[in-house]
Amino acid sequence: MLRALRDTGSARVTELVAATGLSRPTVTAAVSTLTTDGWVEEVEATESDTPRMGRPARVLRFRADARHVLGIDVGPHKVYCAVADFNGTVVAHVRRDITSVTTHADLLDHVRLAIVRALDEAGVEPTSLAAVGVGTPGIVDERRGAIVQAPSVPGWNSLELARWLRQSVDCPVHIDNDVNLAVMAEQWIGAGSATDNLVLVQWGSRVGAAVLVQGQLHRGAHGAAGEIGFVDLAAEPQGVQPDGLGPLESAIGTAAIVRRARELGDITSRGAADVLAAATQGEQRALQVIDEVAAQFARGFAPFLAAIDPELVIIGGRITLAGETIRSRVAHHLQVRALATPRLELSALGDDAVALGAVKLAAADAEQRLLDSYMYLSTDGAGRP
Amino acid sequence: MLRALRDTGSARVTELVAATGLSRPTVTAAVSTLTTDGWVEEVEATESDTPRMGRPARVLRFRADARHVLGIDVGPHKVYCAVADFNGTVVAHVRRDITSVTTHADLLDHVRLAIVRALDEAGVEPTSLAAVGVGTPGIVDERRGAIVQAPSVPGWNSLELARWLRQSVDCPVHIDNDVNLAVMAEQWIGAGSATDNLVLVQWGSRVGAAVLVQGQLHRGAHGAAGEIGFVDLAAEPQGVQPDGLGPLESAIGTAAIVRRARELGDITSRGAADVLAAATQGEQRALQVIDEVAAQFARGFAPFLAAIDPELVIIGGRITLAGETIRSRVAHHLQVRALATPRLELSALGDDAVALGAVKLAAADAEQRLLDSYMYLSTDGAGRP
Repeated sequence: MLRALRDTGSARVTELVAATGLSRPTVTAAVSTLTTDGWVEEVEATESDTPRMGRPARVLRFRADARHVLGIDVGPHKVYCAVADFNGTVVAHVRRDITSVTTHADLLDHVRLAIVRALDEAGVEPTSLAAVGVGTPGIVDERRGAIVQAPSVPGWNSLELARWLRQSVDCPVHIDNDVNLAVMAEQWIGAGSATDNLVLVQWGSRVGAAVLVQGQLHRGAHGAAGEIGFVDLAAEPQGVQPDGLGPLESAIGTAAIVRRARELGDITSRGAADVLAAATQGEQRALQVIDEVAAQFARGFAPFLAAIDPELVIIGGRITLAGETIRSRVAHHLQVRALATPRLELSALGDDAVALGAVKLAAADAEQRLLDSYMYLSTDGAGRP
Repeated sequence: MLRALRDTGSARVTELVAATGLSRPTVTAAVSTLTTDGWVEEVEATESDTPRMGRPARVLRFRADARHVLGIDVGPHKVYCAVADFNGTVVAHVRRDITSVTTHADLLDHVRLAIVRALDEAGVEPTSLAAVGVGTPGIVDERRGAIVQAPSVPGWNSLELARWLRQSVDCPVHIDNDVNLAVMAEQWIGAGSATDNLVLVQWGSRVGAAVLVQGQLHRGAHGAAGEIGFVDLAAEPQGVQPDGLGPLESAIGTAAIVRRARELGDITSRGAADVLAAATQGEQRALQVIDEVAAQFARGFAPFLAAIDPELVIIGGRITLAGETIRSRVAHHLQVRALATPRLELSALGDDAVALGAVKLAAADAEQRLLDSYMYLSTDGAGRP
């Protein structure tokens, strides 16, 4: 019944009886319980809801704002925290750009502050949180809520992130690799909703990918599937760089883009966003930089594609500020390197994808637990299963 | 009941009644039908089969040799044809090495001759064939039984291979990519039987791979998943070579191994087999060649691994003549390039893997059709479903 209400937004008791196949007394009793618990409220019927004759029917609404979830994207360069209602609709978000982080305690402080500020902005009490989802770089043991390996974040290896977060919030916390969450967001509301064999490339200061096979996230035997940023193209292997970046992301990530633009004589851009924007304006130096990183990316990505042969590749992350320029240059360079070339699309979710995926992860868990807690009602009053 | 007989090899009627849950009269009637059709025979009970008292029980045996299947491995350098009984046990095989093929008609002639000779050697009539399986390089449309794209075989593109073969044999013909079949053989009787997240690399004159995800062959959106041989590592893309080979297989395949050994002053080896054998004897030049191709392979394969993160990689094909030498050098070079390294094993099936996979493909189809044809017996005489 909760599901029927969730799906329609609002409904009359008669409609709930029809949709669920439950008896009218059962539905009425359930509505009463859910109203007491704060999940359902009675609202005034709008004109179209009102029947022409008879007394106005009660219209019931699922209170998606009765409780909230948090979605957090944490990485070495930013913390992004989104507060969403039970439907996954974001009601407030806070972004903290981080210029220098030396210890994991620093980074955790940024996370704590971002949570406090986001909840404050949304006017949501910490006690009203139903679940938290967190996306982080690296290899994650999502069952244990711990980070296994994350070379790009200082002190992040082996960190029990979920346990740490539960000191700040009084609800279940779920951790996953950031790009895995981004691909969930793409499936949920992005470019990937119609395809179940796809690769998402998240390209910013770091470069990672997530792989969907038959609509399922493919994690791999060590949770390392999709770690394209650590691909090493040099004849003599370079290994992980001193700053924790992998060889490929070190060569094509946003820092490399700024560096290369400077080398080519660009003295006006203050950061990658400026270079990427200049490319969309047709500025020659910026176009050259985009072409160079697209070529390098294609060189490392073509063997990755040879393993998966996906139908669709979505490019997401900060690089999408270069718009069609980056998409078309990557498509060009893949065309000459890959035996079978996929469709190539830009993500419309941009920098929000990871946090939105984290929101989805948290909302899905919260919804499941809510449904479980009322399970006995759906067995027509016959008691708990 | 057929399955029960297949699984045990031989059984008494009493045992079949127990194993199937069918009534004794039903089992007896089924045995009679199957005996008439030639699938079951009565054999003398061995000593251990004979009860101490009472009359000797009838022991029934599934006649796996009642009909046969063919498994064919066809490529630009060889045709390998195996005749197997209904259990997939190979009873005869013929290998034709091909030194120069200029047209697809030439190659098809080799296939026709190999079939005739293999059947002759097995003493099997063409009319007694239940199914044929064929493995071929390239991208295959296995539903249509046609080759979509196979750059390494002259005239092979768009060839309706199954339709052509049905001119020579009077039974269903199934086509698949050769490496896909090799991985099925590994799952069936090889190194991959305990793992359902694995990559098989078939490394000979060509280099291809097949990917199992969750125990299922991952074909990809265009049937091109696993085409590692076409990976292009050069900064300036090389594309498909004049001889139809992809850039990577051109650099590390058996022809390149012989070429490189010659460059290093090897004047005794007549072919790749000699160089590979020399490496197992610790010959320095051969070891250097193995190390060089292992390094190049790892460079192209590491990004491929980054997509899949398999638990196990099996190396198969002619390269396995170099034994532990090639395995350990590949392991070494992957170790320094891959974020997560899989277990690495050599295939024990060697050059037979593709033909064995083709046998398995044919046997599985033949068994399914046999079971379907007797389906009504398993519904306890209640008629066809």
